[in-house]
Amino acid sequence: QTPHRDRPPAYGQVTTGPIEGSHKIWSSPPDRSDIRVPFREIPLDPSANEPPVRVYDTSGPYTDPTVQIDVEHGLPSVRSSWLAKRGFSQVADVRAVKPEDNGFAGEKQLVASCPAPHEVLSGGKAKLVTQYEFARAGIITEEMIYVAHRENLGRAEMVEGAQARRADGEDFGAEIPAFITPEFVRSEIAAGRAIIPANINHPELEPVIIGRNFLVKINANIGNSAVTSSAAEEVEKLVWSIRWGADTVMDLSTGRNIHNIRDWILRNSPVPIGTVPLYQALEKVGGVAEKLTWGIFRDTLIEQAEQGVDYFTIHAGVRLQHVPLTAHRTTGIVSRGGSIMAAWCLHHHRESFLYEHFEEICDIMRTYDISFSLGDGLRPGSIADANDAAQFAELETLGELTKVAWAKGCQVMIEGPGHVPMHKIKINMTKQLSECGEAPFYTLGPLTTDIAPGYDHITSGIGAAMIGWYGCAMLCYVTPKEHLGLPDRSDVKVGVITYKIAAHAADLAKGHPAAQIRDDAISRARFEFRWQDQFNLALDPDTARSFHDETLPKEAHKTA
Amino acid sequence: QTPHRDRPPAYGQVTTGPIEGSHKIWSSPPDRSDIRVPFREIPLDPSANEPPVRVYDTSGPYTDPTVQIDVEHGLPSVRSSWLAKRGFSQVADVRAVKPEDNGFAGEKQLVASCPAPHEVLSGGKAKLVTQYEFARAGIITEEMIYVAHRENLGRAEMVEGAQARRADGEDFGAEIPAFITPEFVRSEIAAGRAIIPANINHPELEPVIIGRNFLVKINANIGNSAVTSSAAEEVEKLVWSIRWGADTVMDLSTGRNIHNIRDWILRNSPVPIGTVPLYQALEKVGGVAEKLTWGIFRDTLIEQAEQGVDYFTIHAGVRLQHVPLTAHRTTGIVSRGGSIMAAWCLHHHRESFLYEHFEEICDIMRTYDISFSLGDGLRPGSIADANDAAQFAELETLGELTKVAWAKGCQVMIEGPGHVPMHKIKINMTKQLSECGEAPFYTLGPLTTDIAPGYDHITSGIGAAMIGWYGCAMLCYVTPKEHLGLPDRSDVKVGVITYKIAAHAADLAKGHPAAQIRDDAISRARFEFRWQDQFNLALDPDTARSFHDETLPKEAHKTA
Repeated sequence: QTPHRDRPPAYGQVTTGPIEGSHKIWSSPPDRSDIRVPFREIPLDPSANEPPVRVYDTSGPYTDPTVQIDVEHGLPSVRSSWLAKRGFSQVADVRAVKPEDNGFAGEKQLVASCPAPHEVLSGGKAKLVTQYEFARAGIITEEMIYVAHRENLGRAEMVEGAQARRADGEDFGAEIPAFITPEFVRSEIAAGRAIIPANINHPELEPVIIGRNFLVKINANIGNSAVTSSAAEEVEKLVWSIRWGADTVMDLSTGRNIHNIRDWILRNSPVPIGTVPLYQALEKVGGVAEKLTWGIFRDTLIEQAEQGVDYFTIHAGVRLQHVPLTAHRTTGIVSRGGSIMAAWCLHHHRESFLYEHFEEICDIMRTYDISFSLGDGLRPGSIADANDAAQFAELETLGELTKVAWAKGCQVMIEGPGHVPMHKIKINMTKQLSECGEAPFYTLGPLTTDIAPGYDHITSGIGAAMIGWYGCAMLCYVTPKEHLGLPDRSDVKVGVITYKIAAHAADLAKGHPAAQIRDDAISRARFEFRWQDQFNLALDPDTARSFHDETLPKEAHKTA
Repeated sequence: QTPHRDRPPAYGQVTTGPIEGSHKIWSSPPDRSDIRVPFREIPLDPSANEPPVRVYDTSGPYTDPTVQIDVEHGLPSVRSSWLAKRGFSQVADVRAVKPEDNGFAGEKQLVASCPAPHEVLSGGKAKLVTQYEFARAGIITEEMIYVAHRENLGRAEMVEGAQARRADGEDFGAEIPAFITPEFVRSEIAAGRAIIPANINHPELEPVIIGRNFLVKINANIGNSAVTSSAAEEVEKLVWSIRWGADTVMDLSTGRNIHNIRDWILRNSPVPIGTVPLYQALEKVGGVAEKLTWGIFRDTLIEQAEQGVDYFTIHAGVRLQHVPLTAHRTTGIVSRGGSIMAAWCLHHHRESFLYEHFEEICDIMRTYDISFSLGDGLRPGSIADANDAAQFAELETLGELTKVAWAKGCQVMIEGPGHVPMHKIKINMTKQLSECGEAPFYTLGPLTTDIAPGYDHITSGIGAAMIGWYGCAMLCYVTPKEHLGLPDRSDVKVGVITYKIAAHAADLAKGHPAAQIRDDAISRARFEFRWQDQFNLALDPDTARSFHDETLPKEAHKTA
């Protein structure tokens, strides 16, 4: 009877419909009915005599049965009216799509471009463009009001106990308030401690804030298939990731059709989309790193900026002088971006063009309010290489670049490792905070041991929970296929749920005032044998229900 | 070509044969060819130019192709010649099996008793019986020599770098030596900081040491099926758990046939077997807690002692005065043993018979060298109840009982929670060490959030890794079916592998001198694209290989 949503949707479709046992609601901040913030509400059995449990919801309009989903039309606009008032200009000479943007895909292989309408804006002539600039100018944007309401969840009703819950946690110097106000959001962004990745060309976005004084966020990576049968198939990867809780999604596609697929993804994405523009630039020069030029890279930034990408990974911290530091490593340079830039630097024996042109990169990214995700190209790929000279030298450079980007008005977060044993995790967080002026940290795992390929969602989930507790703002997921192959639908779900566990465990440990509401509700349900409530309150109701039904299939057992 | 060992064995059989890509070896300590310690060696590709990697091996003779396995004969004896010299007497009047021992199983339902020969010993008249007594007397037993050799793995060859590796770790006051000597083992046991659970009636045992200055151990729980089709089916649960790395196994069977099934398990177990005698005692009184008596409980202890159970969970810390402390909990008393004893205390309104007869329990357990696992009957069942007054009051009682048991010559470890958010884990470890005189801690998880039924191996794996790092000596696994149903074969494997990850991550973080050898070997294999080596060095070679083959099935890709 329950639709088993782990089955892929029909051809040309994406997964829609409520998450089992819950419904979508939209809620507006006081006096701002123009701002509609999504939540999910889980009603409980009447015997519980408790209000529904409200949870954070990343799933977008896809879980709202009242919204007609058609990937060819794209999602409804959330931000257009806000953006319209900011003095941005419509770009008349939008960059034309070139054959190399889609990897020279032939007529038969070419995925058509997304027909959803898309007006390209530029903030070039506006005085204030980025959320950072608005925040520094003391201006609270609609995005700030939106995320404040979103972060509070049900906290309006429980401010009373909030201080006690805060005091009960251990937050390692974070300053989570009992209640999030728009002004608090503004002040955190102005201080560089938080970002709202929100390209002005991504009006479909439901804004999300990333910073250590907010709920810990998670990212899921997706990429195109070698053979794409339909654009919906690629959009579905996004929809599936956000259905289970991905706060942002990185599109790491390579090869053919990546420009057009990116278009489909952006027009249908309620979450911030990140990319690594270097990957596409490399495709344009036939995969030969030394052929990369600043001109090709710059053109790729404009291409993706106009499409609406919300954050770019920029590996500008891999400097020529750092490369020799990796010579005696066990696993060398494992970051793809890091390898590309190291190869380029060594071949030309000159400083990285990303480092040399960093200010111009800032100018471009500021024009569209694309956030920096300063890449850790020298992250350790093994326990043996954790916290070595190469890794920390790059981190210091990232700290230097953070200040440049801020001076240019940009939003910035910093990428982090990688493979790190438990006892070496905390210093990563401490050092990142001090080197990078408290800019949000965004880490991959870290994996706490190298010996469990096939289970690296778990080896890394341990490290992710810990670094999230210590202050990491966003955790990039790792799936069971890490090191072995490409994740399928099931791997993506397991990766996302594992990272939701890590992020939530971190929120609990930090003493986030609203985090424990859901734990308490599910624990009461468990104690009272309200099985349906226990399933519905779970991060993955479908799996909880099916595991239970395997051994105790009778309906009667679920309410007894 | 690779046998897919996740398939259950044929009727009447158990899983045998080497773990893919490795072979069993037996190694003797210097001058002690009578002591044969098992390891597993993983040979590497000749291109690596590296010696085989030696790893700890819990799998028993089942992975040795030279041993003929027949569950009706039981395993070869490891300890008989050692035990023969200790002056123990053969029990003439062995306790006769009673109908209630097997839950009054009728003729048709009765699983036959195991025909393997079993001589029952009693240490009652010997001056020294337990490993603790020998250690205190300054005597090094064969078991101590065995575990010293076992713990060292390949460390003989790398003592040189050991101090540096130790210094690189963070062990929170543990004192892991660069090299484990039998004398060090003796001194740790004498101090109560470590135990070797080893009933004198379990000669098939391959001794294992549990203590925070040794490798972190894991336990898997098994239990009988409602309908047992063959005794081998029950033995297979043990075999399957130890194949993937369980260091000890608890038999939590209930209902029919439990006496006879326990016999089959013990005669075929190379690892220590733990039980909760209270469960069987309750069966004998028809499941009605208040009908329990000291006499029935005492008789059950003798019954299981003579069979050879290596450690007993004894819930003697649940005192009458503690029960009211749980009144306002979110999830009350979730431990089965705790609930039974609380019900008994409340019904009779008197002190627990386990607490009142604790010295007699010690005398019985000392007679056979059964180790105490002092149960945490009041462990928290939810984040809300973590570290509350009830939990810590019980822990203080356990500390008091530890000293009583030591004075009686018994080996002791202490069970711990449960559900605990990350920031409240460390105090559990610190308090356990101080209250219980550094007796080994043995925890269930802890689960770091309540909201992910279906994934509680992960919510708890996070907590397990952390508490293992802080000093917990053994981690009791949790499977994906926790809270939902009974684990199947696949769940058991996932639970064991998850806990091997947690234990190994802890060993790395503590700076265990030999732990990183395997990480380094797999990382070099990864860097050099030696795929077969990477699979074979993995905790689960079969899964790593099959995940890889799903996306890149060609043989060529694995050596390229």
